[in-house]
Amino acid sequence: MTVYDIIDAKKNRKELGEEQLRFFVRAVAAGDASDAQIAAFCMAVLLNGMTDEECFLLTDAMAKSGSVPARPPVAGVIADKHSTGGVSDSTTLVLVPVLCSLGVKCAKYSGRGLGHTGGTLDKLESFAGLRVDLTPQQFARQIRTVGGAVAGQTEQTVPADRRMYAVRDVTATIDSIPLIASSVMSKKLASFADVILLDVKYGDGAFMQTAEEAERLARLMVKIGRRAGRNVSAAVTNMDAPLGDAVGCNAEAREAVAVLGGKKNALARLSLFLAEKLLAAAFSLTEEEAARRVAEAVSSGAALEKFAQIVAAQGGDARVVYDPSLLPLAPVKTAVRAERDGVLRVAAKKLGEACLLLGGGRQRAEDAVDHSVGILLQKRAGDRVKKGDVLAEVYSRSGAEEALARVRAAFSYPAAYTPPALVYDYISEV
Amino acid sequence: MTVYDIIDAKKNRKELGEEQLRFFVRAVAAGDASDAQIAAFCMAVLLNGMTDEECFLLTDAMAKSGSVPARPPVAGVIADKHSTGGVSDSTTLVLVPVLCSLGVKCAKYSGRGLGHTGGTLDKLESFAGLRVDLTPQQFARQIRTVGGAVAGQTEQTVPADRRMYAVRDVTATIDSIPLIASSVMSKKLASFADVILLDVKYGDGAFMQTAEEAERLARLMVKIGRRAGRNVSAAVTNMDAPLGDAVGCNAEAREAVAVLGGKKNALARLSLFLAEKLLAAAFSLTEEEAARRVAEAVSSGAALEKFAQIVAAQGGDARVVYDPSLLPLAPVKTAVRAERDGVLRVAAKKLGEACLLLGGGRQRAEDAVDHSVGILLQKRAGDRVKKGDVLAEVYSRSGAEEALARVRAAFSYPAAYTPPALVYDYISEV
Repeated sequence: MTVYDIIDAKKNRKELGEEQLRFFVRAVAAGDASDAQIAAFCMAVLLNGMTDEECFLLTDAMAKSGSVPARPPVAGVIADKHSTGGVSDSTTLVLVPVLCSLGVKCAKYSGRGLGHTGGTLDKLESFAGLRVDLTPQQFARQIRTVGGAVAGQTEQTVPADRRMYAVRDVTATIDSIPLIASSVMSKKLASFADVILLDVKYGDGAFMQTAEEAERLARLMVKIGRRAGRNVSAAVTNMDAPLGDAVGCNAEAREAVAVLGGKKNALARLSLFLAEKLLAAAFSLTEEEAARRVAEAVSSGAALEKFAQIVAAQGGDARVVYDPSLLPLAPVKTAVRAERDGVLRVAAKKLGEACLLLGGGRQRAEDAVDHSVGILLQKRAGDRVKKGDVLAEVYSRSGAEEALARVRAAFSYPAAYTPPALVYDYISEV
Repeated sequence: MTVYDIIDAKKNRKELGEEQLRFFVRAVAAGDASDAQIAAFCMAVLLNGMTDEECFLLTDAMAKSGSVPARPPVAGVIADKHSTGGVSDSTTLVLVPVLCSLGVKCAKYSGRGLGHTGGTLDKLESFAGLRVDLTPQQFARQIRTVGGAVAGQTEQTVPADRRMYAVRDVTATIDSIPLIASSVMSKKLASFADVILLDVKYGDGAFMQTAEEAERLARLMVKIGRRAGRNVSAAVTNMDAPLGDAVGCNAEAREAVAVLGGKKNALARLSLFLAEKLLAAAFSLTEEEAARRVAEAVSSGAALEKFAQIVAAQGGDARVVYDPSLLPLAPVKTAVRAERDGVLRVAAKKLGEACLLLGGGRQRAEDAVDHSVGILLQKRAGDRVKKGDVLAEVYSRSGAEEALARVRAAFSYPAAYTPPALVYDYISEV
């Protein structure tokens, strides 16, 4: 068997078996497959597709391609959540402390922002001193002591996915449902979480453009997870407009703290919805009981306190949790106003791109991020606005004309517009 | 415009335009496109296809990706011939001297053997001292002085094709008709030949398996060549059995000399058929007149004498042309006999692979070739044979059991079998 034969078989629409997929993934992880061979394989998969069985076998082989961290010795289930990425999506910063404060252990592996999408690890680093590069031992210890941790997966975890993702990123082979599913789920299967909730986003600011595509991806990932023996479910949620009212690391960290303090918006609704689902799954509660406990965790201040504990445990400045104004915003504040009367429509991707142009995101994985720049929305999608109303405040280091133009282009003013429902579907069985 | 965008467009079945294809080819030649990007592009082309227009534009851009040698100052047309590769295909060694002896200038760029197929340059190097790495100046001078030259294209010619071919070779993206057409024709368009005859082979020992595929490739290449202003035609010919009766460098060099001396077999028929077509095109002759002159070139000894001149001009030992027994065959001679009565059927690819196993071919471009090993067929496809008849003599350095088994496996003995016609089609207009 050779890597060449496996590419050739996929090219010729033959179904790949367990032995072939294991061989291929081992060759990717060991460096025996070249970047060119990985690219050819990915393009063949993108164009010819994969059966669900092939996708499961690929995912399983990838999950086993590196070291899998040992499960910490804690009672009860361990939860994880994963979003496919969007704009102003700080659900992790809300959901993890809520769940931990209610006794659910959270082992959350997160990523960095890339392109127009933000990343949880960057937002966490807004808390001065906070470290996200925990060793497997530190990660496990914090789950035992504090109840939860949020960190990046190490280089040793799922090395096959790291190589494949890097190749896909430059070869226009990201947007393949089986490749996305295997990339996400291999990382989830290489962790020790028992209950996993996937937030699969669709719309302007997401990778999946339509609800139907997102639903397909969500079902496939749930199927893979279930087949691997994990309790996996998925929400399919809309990302036409930014989820929260803030874009940019410090701005989003501030907003997460505000939501933990009781602020109500779409970010709050989705974070608490997802927390309820995970809580109900972890403790076999009714939906009503789960909703009651989640609301209580916020109103009592317990979730906010847990967040301060997590920030402190990872070396961050926990005072900021109680005084988010300590998180600085960039000095030049510019108001963006409505250009005419109408119902506001907001394009999330353009706002993500504007933040990138401000220096608050990454074009490439190795770019540095400016945490202080960002956008605070003053109106939300679906609001009726009048010409001249302030729609957003943009915080920049200097004038940033290009970014401001992108912010302006994110807004449109149709005569009528109803934003799509936040949650399109919730999938717990396939 | 980026390489990524171009891959993405081809992946999404959009037709690529001149600007995009030029940009891509320049990026390949300059090293700005990575191997992974080239592989993704090639797999997308293989699976999604190309329009004839796209294929022409790609070919044209590739032809212009390097330096194009200057046309030597000679009167009349300059001819070239190209075979898509097969087993025991020494037509160049016959055709070039025949044409040169009749006053047609031949600028023949050839390649090396790879896998089960032989290469003209390797066979020429059977003549001790012969050099195939002529500079453009040496090549042009020899066309002026001797009338013809056979050499490898330099590293500077069509660099985009060199990179793309190396990537395709390891990524299962060789067998795409537009990619084969652009690879072959870019090299032809980067030369100064006016009249070009393509020999597109199909069958067991060829890249194209069916006559229909070969016909499609041939028509596409003729169309590309005509659009570029060259007089291009193509023969579609069968390669189920080896073309000649010899496989291996020295054995084939010996056979080419024998055909120039009057030996009659399929190699002779095809070489002289192709020579007639080129001669008729070069001097606007009737087919009858062209056939008469070609036959005369052989029977008079003029073609053999011209071959000796070409060998000598390139530094080779021309005495060998008059005494081919000076070309040694490997010391261990083993007869392979018919295993039962029947009509002989011969599978060319297995014989090519056997020669490779003997050390007479290349698994990789950098492998060295043993010129002395080879196979001399004593019976031809379609011959009625009896059990025990000697079918082939295998010349090896030692026992070479694996190669002998492959030779035996090349023969089968159906009760009835008529080999396909040698020439399936000849295409001069599209």
